[in-house]
Amino acid sequence: MSESRADKPFTLAGRTYQSRLLLGTGKYRDFAETAAAVEASGAQIVTVALRRSNIGQNPDEPNLLDVISPERYCILPNTAGCFSALEAVRTCRLARELLGGQQLVKLEVLADTKTLFPNVVETLKAAETLVTEGFQVMAYTSDDPIVARQLAEMGCVAVMPLAGLIGSGLGICNPWNLRIILEEAKVPVLVDAGVGTASDAVIAMELGCDAVLMNSAVANAQNPLLMASAMKHAVEAGRLAYLAGRMPKKRYASASSPIDGLIA
Amino acid sequence: MSESRADKPFTLAGRTYQSRLLLGTGKYRDFAETAAAVEASGAQIVTVALRRSNIGQNPDEPNLLDVISPERYCILPNTAGCFSALEAVRTCRLARELLGGQQLVKLEVLADTKTLFPNVVETLKAAETLVTEGFQVMAYTSDDPIVARQLAEMGCVAVMPLAGLIGSGLGICNPWNLRIILEEAKVPVLVDAGVGTASDAVIAMELGCDAVLMNSAVANAQNPLLMASAMKHAVEAGRLAYLAGRMPKKRYASASSPIDGLIA
Amino acid sequence: MSESRADKPFTLAGRTYQSRLLLGTGKYRDFAETAAAVEASGAQIVTVALRRSNIGQNPDEPNLLDVISPERYCILPNTAGCFSALEAVRTCRLARELLGGQQLVKLEVLADTKTLFPNVVETLKAAETLVTEGFQVMAYTSDDPIVARQLAEMGCVAVMPLAGLIGSGLGICNPWNLRIILEEAKVPVLVDAGVGTASDAVIAMELGCDAVLMNSAVANAQNPLLMASAMKHAVEAGRLAYLAGRMPKKRYASASSPIDGLIA
Amino acid sequence: MSESRADKPFTLAGRTYQSRLLLGTGKYRDFAETAAAVEASGAQIVTVALRRSNIGQNPDEPNLLDVISPERYCILPNTAGCFSALEAVRTCRLARELLGGQQLVKLEVLADTKTLFPNVVETLKAAETLVTEGFQVMAYTSDDPIVARQLAEMGCVAVMPLAGLIGSGLGICNPWNLRIILEEAKVPVLVDAGVGTASDAVIAMELGCDAVLMNSAVANAQNPLLMASAMKHAVEAGRLAYLAGRMPKKRYASASSPIDGLIA
Repeated sequence: MSESRADKPFTLAGRTYQSRLLLGTGKYRDFAETAAAVEASGAQIVTVALRRSNIGQNPDEPNLLDVISPERYCILPNTAGCFSALEAVRTCRLARELLGGQQLVKLEVLADTKTLFPNVVETLKAAETLVTEGFQVMAYTSDDPIVARQLAEMGCVAVMPLAGLIGSGLGICNPWNLRIILEEAKVPVLVDAGVGTASDAVIAMELGCDAVLMNSAVANAQNPLLMASAMKHAVEAGRLAYLAGRMPKKRYASASSPIDGLIA
Repeated sequence: MSESRADKPFTLAGRTYQSRLLLGTGKYRDFAETAAAVEASGAQIVTVALRRSNIGQNPDEPNLLDVISPERYCILPNTAGCFSALEAVRTCRLARELLGGQQLVKLEVLADTKTLFPNVVETLKAAETLVTEGFQVMAYTSDDPIVARQLAEMGCVAVMPLAGLIGSGLGICNPWNLRIILEEAKVPVLVDAGVGTASDAVIAMELGCDAVLMNSAVANAQNPLLMASAMKHAVEAGRLAYLAGRMPKKRYASASSPIDGLIA
Repeated sequence: MSESRADKPFTLAGRTYQSRLLLGTGKYRDFAETAAAVEASGAQIVTVALRRSNIGQNPDEPNLLDVISPERYCILPNTAGCFSALEAVRTCRLARELLGGQQLVKLEVLADTKTLFPNVVETLKAAETLVTEGFQVMAYTSDDPIVARQLAEMGCVAVMPLAGLIGSGLGICNPWNLRIILEEAKVPVLVDAGVGTASDAVIAMELGCDAVLMNSAVANAQNPLLMASAMKHAVEAGRLAYLAGRMPKKRYASASSPIDGLIA
Repeated sequence: MSESRADKPFTLAGRTYQSRLLLGTGKYRDFAETAAAVEASGAQIVTVALRRSNIGQNPDEPNLLDVISPERYCILPNTAGCFSALEAVRTCRLARELLGGQQLVKLEVLADTKTLFPNVVETLKAAETLVTEGFQVMAYTSDDPIVARQLAEMGCVAVMPLAGLIGSGLGICNPWNLRIILEEAKVPVLVDAGVGTASDAVIAMELGCDAVLMNSAVANAQNPLLMASAMKHAVEAGRLAYLAGRMPKKRYASASSPIDGLIA
């Protein structure tokens, strides 16, 4: 049985957010759909892949920030599409320039285009450099608890383990690793990647994650706006259930002792 | 990949409800907590075990209806604690009397006090009698698709298969059976029993259930009011995700076809 | 953590068997493949659907017993293809005649050709009649613990709950129900239907089943003979692991207390 | 549906083995029990932690090789208990000396004593050095497909991803990662760590692993010798099932297409 817990605000790099859902901006039909999905999701932090979306680096093309206003949303630039520490670091520097000196970035160094699995060695390297250069690094990583720990010790402001592979929609593939990460977390832990539907987001939050980041689950749903709204409720439901402290699991009501309520 | 679906209202025995969450009234600390939990859950239908809670049959004792007003809520009497068709039928008759001729009842015939598993043979018998006597029967049953079908054909207004055993909190123990029930359902299908936390309710709704009924998950949470609120969001999230049509599952984003499900 | 257990022989209706794997004889390319698969599996009990396979009722057609000798194997006639108690009872009577008065039969009353789910009401009816007529009834049923209990109390010599639907290959869909059946079993419990590959058979045996019956898993494998041999080892492995008493599950080795080792 | 496959021998660093089960030698009551378990398991390769078991480095103490003869078994020294690349490399050098120049070693660099999770960064470092020094490195690692790939490309003779944490007995925690590792493997893949009972070993082999290494599952069973025997059958069953090519999974037998895997 879990305990009931007192709520505490979701604070990231010194700023507090009401919503614990972060939304990616890729894969939508157009910027209008992107903006509508963000609106429906209630997200306050939206993440933008500098290598794919224009936030000013291509002055002649439509600018995402015209529909997702930096006045209203925290724009979180990410390094999706980078396959080495060097590329990622450079992309972060460009983002900082474009966003008026904003230090907050989401680091993501992938290993290949087939699996989109993170390259943890390059991720660690890039994180080290970025922290040194004053960035507030939210680090996307595998669910390896040791790498997550190293990223936190290095000074990252959040660790973002995957639930499943990017674009897979498989949900929480390994709750055991996630639990170990959460058990010893000194910085906020956000599940990033793998969420496919509302229940996946709920489970992530029930496990105790601070927030969830998703993109495909909303953008690739048949009806992205409905799914954005589903996710808003899902993250809320999961957080409340985590705070409420669930009932114990038992084989049957009259069983003398609960089975452990861990997720198998 | 699921399809996107048009919403349709949740209608039960000719009446339409906004909330797809039904709440039991047992196991709370006192009537005040019951009422507060019902309020927080947003439930419009609350179910009452006549053998355990007083709705007038014991005139000298506190009456649940004083805190859960029949003006505001649909009071759904249930036959929890009945172990034979005969007992259940009698209890329904008493309920009808107490509730001014209300025909809507939740039938529940259990097999024993140890497992609280339904006795499907007695359930079928009782349903037959009750339907003949003009009751609008919502039938609690196992997840046996054939028994569910027979109950619907018999004239029950809803079938209510268990997700897991009463009081177990194990969640959806067998989604496969539930899917078959849903695939061929001619009447509303409500998951009843087994829900332990918010994600369980979401999964039930994502599968396409019309509604979810729960009691222990809220009453036995460490903080029932927070959990009631979690469940409100959960049912909403699950319904919206069902309507939205989730993205397909893939082993990885670049995989050419969705997973084959060999590994569950 | 399970306990280590002393082995006891697998005894069915007074006769003891070395092999705990029962094999169906349908769905093979021809009788020769059937015989080879039975041989490779080590099965001593083979089950025959009277409505589909000829064991003498059609004197002009090839007879299965010419390749699967009743001298060597226990031929277990089953009522597959029967959709009512009456049909099943008649089929058992015919089987008894054809097999020289043999009382041992496998009862199977299905509800429809689409799901092949058992009709438990008709199964109970048929079992009652058959027991009265002196048959030794092995009853195929759903995983409903109450129906299983009733079949045993009625005098069936074994209960045979499904793991999953016939021909589904989904494995053990609901270990929780199976565990309750096993916990209170007074007669041998055999998992019948749903096994799809070797690990499914192992899990059934690790749960404490007395034996496993399968057909499609072997006959529909790409290479039935290899799979028959896999299943021989699987049933052995599962039984030995059950007797050995597995190590406790823990979140990690140094965790102070085990999680409960139940299958989730 | 899997395909049927032709068998190929299990070859490791140029030598072929009949048994695909590798056994650890720690955690037994005494050397006699170790030897008996190895015998019952049919293992031909046994692994020895140089930091815990004496194979000659402590000349005055009982020597494991007196009961597990190097004439009969391939003695695979491992670096359990090493928490840095440096320690691990030194331990391998000592092993080579003690075993008459044997190059085959199992590399294992853990991150901490609490989780016993591998430190993949240090593992990569150690592997690089060892390969350069002529060792034939079997590398224990997480289930990170990228790290597994790097270890293989570096020249390791086998990669040994964990199924679950050492000593956890949780089985295959993330089959998805394991499948990606197997899909692109250029060297033998052995599951190492996490196996808790026979079905876990079967599942690993059904996924296509070349072999399985375990220790606690046998040593910490209530009856280690029975479990050793269970595991012998399990590995055999899983390999045969993999070769046989399992039947497809379907929601029910008459379903027109295999399941889509939306529900896991």
